[in-house]
This record gives sequence, structure tokens and C-alpha cells, in this order.
Amino acid sequence: MESAVEELKEKGRAAKAASRRMAYLPTEVKNQALHNVADDLLAKKDEVLAANQIDYKEAEASGMNAAMLDRLFLSSSRLESIAQDVLAVAALPDPVGEVFDMRTLPNGLLIGRKRVPLGVIGAIYESRPNVTIDISVLCLKSGNAIILRGGREAIRSNSALAEVVQEACKRAGVPDGAVNFIENTDRALVNHLLKMGDIIDLLIPRGGAGLIKFVTENAAMPVVSGGVGVCHTYVDKSADVAKAVAIAFNAKVQRPTVCNALDTLLVHAALAQRYLPIIAAEWAEAGVEMHCDERALSILKSSPSLKLVPATDEDWGKEFLSLVAAVKVVDSLDEALEHIERYGSGHSEAIVTEGYQPAMRFLNEVDAACVYVNASTRFTDGGQFGLGAEVGISTQKMHARGPLGVKELTTYKWIIFGSGQVRP
Amino acid sequence: MESAVEELKEKGRAAKAASRRMAYLPTEVKNQALHNVADDLLAKKDEVLAANQIDYKEAEASGMNAAMLDRLFLSSSRLESIAQDVLAVAALPDPVGEVFDMRTLPNGLLIGRKRVPLGVIGAIYESRPNVTIDISVLCLKSGNAIILRGGREAIRSNSALAEVVQEACKRAGVPDGAVNFIENTDRALVNHLLKMGDIIDLLIPRGGAGLIKFVTENAAMPVVSGGVGVCHTYVDKSADVAKAVAIAFNAKVQRPTVCNALDTLLVHAALAQRYLPIIAAEWAEAGVEMHCDERALSILKSSPSLKLVPATDEDWGKEFLSLVAAVKVVDSLDEALEHIERYGSGHSEAIVTEGYQPAMRFLNEVDAACVYVNASTRFTDGGQFGLGAEVGISTQKMHARGPLGVKELTTYKWIIFGSGQVRP
Repeated sequence: MESAVEELKEKGRAAKAASRRMAYLPTEVKNQALHNVADDLLAKKDEVLAANQIDYKEAEASGMNAAMLDRLFLSSSRLESIAQDVLAVAALPDPVGEVFDMRTLPNGLLIGRKRVPLGVIGAIYESRPNVTIDISVLCLKSGNAIILRGGREAIRSNSALAEVVQEACKRAGVPDGAVNFIENTDRALVNHLLKMGDIIDLLIPRGGAGLIKFVTENAAMPVVSGGVGVCHTYVDKSADVAKAVAIAFNAKVQRPTVCNALDTLLVHAALAQRYLPIIAAEWAEAGVEMHCDERALSILKSSPSLKLVPATDEDWGKEFLSLVAAVKVVDSLDEALEHIERYGSGHSEAIVTEGYQPAMRFLNEVDAACVYVNASTRFTDGGQFGLGAEVGISTQKMHARGPLGVKELTTYKWIIFGSGQVRP
Repeated sequence: MESAVEELKEKGRAAKAASRRMAYLPTEVKNQALHNVADDLLAKKDEVLAANQIDYKEAEASGMNAAMLDRLFLSSSRLESIAQDVLAVAALPDPVGEVFDMRTLPNGLLIGRKRVPLGVIGAIYESRPNVTIDISVLCLKSGNAIILRGGREAIRSNSALAEVVQEACKRAGVPDGAVNFIENTDRALVNHLLKMGDIIDLLIPRGGAGLIKFVTENAAMPVVSGGVGVCHTYVDKSADVAKAVAIAFNAKVQRPTVCNALDTLLVHAALAQRYLPIIAAEWAEAGVEMHCDERALSILKSSPSLKLVPATDEDWGKEFLSLVAAVKVVDSLDEALEHIERYGSGHSEAIVTEGYQPAMRFLNEVDAACVYVNASTRFTDGGQFGLGAEVGISTQKMHARGPLGVKELTTYKWIIFGSGQVRP
């Protein structure tokens, strides 16, 4: 263990040293490295898949469940898809070097803000080996050095993929030490990583809620993680019913296990009689269980095909991550706004309305990372927003809000060109 | 104490409720409130000065030192100057409501980021009553609700000033609860404030190092505070000696007690013989004590009028906050960059050079909030940078770097205008 800690510190120092040079690495070099990664993922496919096979068989033998096994599994087509994603990141504009707010002050100082990388980013993740590539390429693109610490179950896959990235970087002329992979999977090592606040500028945990909670609570440095998404869709009295059905259906059913899926449907009382039976029937066909307040229940209870459960207090503000939706009838936009204020997690909230005023009030008054009019909350995603890939979705207010793309992995520094100015 | 905690929580709830309305309060209303504050500071001058008199006399009787007494003291002319500062903030552009990155996606979604207030800002400060006004007006301008918790020594002054702000806000139509002042000065109450992470979005400590350390270590919410400034000025071999003398003199002497003052002077060996005796003589006249490395010492030791001390390891990376400077002779720009990398605190760093390449390398390679060519580090200040007033200078990389003005007291939300889009 002691030698593993020493190795971790050595990699930290290497990352820090590399990060200084990464800060002004030409865009061409970074993009060449990404193209090399995409090429090598295919060229070295056999080695990667062989390593993944060993991880997979061991995990299978140890009784890993099917969902986790699927996350661990790599195939030719998955590698091809990962390589495509890498090329998409290469095609993004380089966020680093942008200069903004530049101007000449009355005293002649030319001053502005220049976008620069954060420095060193740490990633702690679990059984999905593609994270090794995802995080590496986003960090490379944004000029950050990286320290990768993947899960034990995928150690051989991660190690093979990290080697692909390191070799691809070396060939492109990226400084040594830009990409560091921790081979030792001893859990105690994570505690040491979490204390390296002088080295690591930002930590990204990727994995289950347990990992994220542990990292967030114990890290000595800033942490970004996919936030909890308690997402509401409010169907206003003026809503177009067809749109409201399509949007609520999509938001709940298209991928129920993720943070931007619908959790609570709020329906204006004036439209509830007409709207609820339609969405309920469609949801029921897709297997959605509805946890209804009394008024919703009284509208829907005559339909025996529906999976209805009386809502309890715990249903409001709950992130279901499954085919369950809470449903509540409200008397006004104000009541909907108050409900969202009280129970929302500041992730993604939507209104369906044909009224101009309700739309504008909702946009103005809801305090969340992403506020929608007449669209599914499922769009909250870096790719969908046109940011390219994302490292997570922030529900914090500081630094960046919503999907975190390559630009959100940067900071800025003030640059000041003088000609001998002193402060009077 | 229990009732004080209850009152604190009540004010927290009021601030939270007000913050929702503050988020879309018209600029005119906010500016009217600030104009009212400026007017009332003069109109109610007698009440405020009378309250301050009581604080001052008590503090004097209790043996408060002269520097702290001076911070506590208010006069007609100080109130006039504070009122001027308030009007300057009123004249700034409103940061809230700016929409950026707005565009139409291929699927027709109109999407962009809208600048919004952070929400509720807490301020914990010590004996300077002007902070009550400073922080209040910056928060009002940026649409944030505020909870003010000033020091015991200035309680009557702060209370009178907070009343000025509250009354000015009421008259302008700012929602009740936007400005909250904690009358109880029991220290234990601060611990409760620090735990209100669900109410307070950002905490600003203003005061001595002890307060800032305590708040930073114990707050459940993000904290911004004036960072430690270990500031270097590097005089390159190609420097113009007259500029280098003026800049280093200004950076050290103009106001030695603040974070952007010079701490360490690095001088290229090729210029040291010519430059060091001149700056040393000027500094000596201003009372600066120089902690010199061996080479600097050997150049300067023949001048008996200088206050020279051999530098120890503790001098590098030390924030002196007084008329002391560490001085080191270096053999190259690289050595200067390495020294700054190792000992700097990421605040403000300067190079003096007539060479293009050294200037650009310094700007590119130094990782600090503010990087200067041929100017004094003393310019690192919200007012000097054209941001209007500032709440502090950040040496963190997340959210905002360098001087924090009204824009840095905001965040953004994604706003999405759809027409029924669902995710495929």
C-alpha cells in the first residue's frame, strides 16, 4: 500500500507538471491525439477486447448482475461507437485560448479574460470502461491533465484503454504525464486521492449514488457529479393535449433510469379530466405505475387497466429512476410553481402551454438548471444541447449549471498588457 | 439563544422567498433602491453617526486598537464617500437577464443561457460598518437576497445602516425579505448560519484571517473570500529599468497591507547589478526591509542605508502584508517561472520586460488569476478592472477568478423554447 501511495503521488506530480504545458498546447496537437485515440481503438481492438474478456469472465464468475455485466462489456461495435464519439469531441471547437471582455482601460492597460484549462482533473469511476476514454478525451480537448482511477471489476479493460490513450498522446506530442492511470485498485487508495487538493483541481466521480456521495463528502477539492434530477412537467390549462401527451410520455418512458426523466406530472384542474385519461392510458401501456393524489385518483380510478397507487408524501420530490410517476392536480400555475420550488432538485423542469404569459412566467420564475417550454426534459444532455459530450449535469449554481461540456472544464485568467502603468 | 436561532431561520425563509421575486425584479426597481440608499445615507446621517458614536465610544473604552477603531469610525465625509460608491454600483449595467449562447438547434428547439442571480447570499463580517452597505448594494444590483451578520463592535452602526437599506428598498418596491440583518451578535449563531446550506447559496466572509479560515472550513455552502496573495514581480534581463523601478516600487509601497502588493521581487542576473541598487535605494527611502538571497545580498551589502536581511526559506511564498519584500536573483525566465509556480498563490504575478517572447511566455505559462506585463500588481481590483465594486478577489479556479464583481454574483439557467419536441 505504501508504494501504491508513493506511485499515486508521483503520478500527481507528473500530472501537475504536464498540466502547465497542456495549458498552451496547440489545438492541432490535442486534436491529433484524439484522432490517434480513435484510430488506435480500432487498430488495437484485439488487445482491448481480450483484456475485457478476462474482466467479464471474472465478473460473471463472481456473480455480477446482468445490468452491471452489460456496462462492463465491450465489443467491436461498442469500440467503433466509442471511437466515433472521440472524433466528435475532436471536431468541437477548442474552448482554450478564447479571450473575452478584452478592452483598453482609460490608463492604457489592455485587459481581458483568457480561457485556460482547470489544470489537473481526477476521475473516480466504477465498472464502465468507456469512461476511461470519455473522460480522457474531454480532458485532453480542454487541455487538462488527468488522473484516472477506475473500478476493480474493469481493471484490465481500463488499463488497456488507458494505454491506448497514453500511446496516442505520446505519438501526437502531448507532454508525458498528461494521462495517468492508477493500476492499484485498493479502495484505501481513493482516500489518498481525495486528499490531493494541492494537485487535483476538480474531481469527477462517475458511478452509483454510493460512490458519488462518498466522493462529494470526503474530497478536499471541488467535485462535479451528475446531480439528482427530480423533474416536473406541468401541463397548464391552456396546453395542447397532443403535445402534452407526447412530452410527458417521452419524458417518462424514453429512458426512465436517468436523471432527466419525468418524476412528477402536475396537471391544471381545468384540463385534468380531459388530459389525464389519455396520458394514463399511454403510460399504462408502457408499464408506468402512477402514484396519484386524490383528485387524479378520482379521475382515473374507473379505468381498471391502469396501475394506480395513492400518492404518499414521500412521492413528491422523489427521483424514481424507473417506470413510476407521481401525479398531482393543481388549481393554478402558481400552485405548480410552488410545488416545483418546494420539491424540485433544480435539474430540469417543463411547462406545456399554449399561453404566452404562463410560458414566460415559468421561464422566469422556475429556478433550475434547465427550464423548458413545450419540450421533453429528456433533452437535458450535453450532446442534445450541442455541447458535444458531457462529463455530467450540474445542479449546483456555482461555476456551471446543467450539462458540463469541454468549456465547463476550463476557467479563465485575467491577462493585462501594460506599458509601465502603476496605480495612483 | 433558541429564539435567536428561530429568528435566523425565519429570516432565512424570508430571504429565500424574496429571492424568487428578486430574480426577475426590473433593473429600474433595483437601481431606484440603490439611489434611495445613497440619498438616505445622507438624509439619515445624524441617526447613523449617533449610532456609530455609541459603538465607537464603547470600543474605545474597551481598549480597541487604533487601526480597528479607524475601521469602525464613520463620519459625514465617509458616509458621502459610501453614498458615491452606491451610485457607482447603480450606474453599472445590470448583469441579470443577459442571454448568451442562444441558438436554434436542428430540431427547432431555441436554447440559450440566461444570467440569473445566485439566490441568497450570506455575509459574515467584522468591525467595518461600510461592509453592510457594500455587500447589500452589490447583492441588490445582482438580484440576490441577503442575510447580513456583522460584528458585535459595530452592531449599532450596522443596524442603523441595515435599516437605511431596508427602508430604501421598501420605498423602491423591492420585495420584503430581500435584505435581512441579524441583530443578535452571539457567536454561536454563526455556527447555525454556516449550516444553512439549503437557504444560502453563497457565503462571503469579510474580516481577519481567523474569521475567513473558520468560515471556509465550516460552511456547508460555497464560500468566496479574498484569497491569499503571494505576488511576484519578475524583472527580466530585457526590462526597461525605469519602468521596472516604478512598477516594483508601486507594487510594494503604494499600499503594502493588501493582497495584491508585491511580496517577492525576482531579478534576472544580467540586470541585477544595474537594477537592484536603484530599486533598493527607493524602497529604503520608503522604509522597505529587503530579505535578500545571497546574490542580491552581495550586490547590495555595500550600501549601509538599506535595511537588508538574509532571506530564509520561509521568505519565499510568504505574504508579508507590510513593508517587507523578499528579493532573489534568477538566471533565466525559466527559473522565474519555476519559482512562481512553486511559491505563488495564484493571485497576481507580473513580468517587466521589453522582450516580446518573455512577455508572451509569461502570460501563457503563469497560472494565476491575474497575469501582468509591465504593470503593477496593485491593479488587481474590481474597481481598477472596470467591474465596479468587488466583494473579494478569488484565487480559486472554479466559478470566477480574480476580482468578483456583480456579474460574479450570478449564475445562469438554460432556457429552452420548444414547440412539442420529444427526444428520439
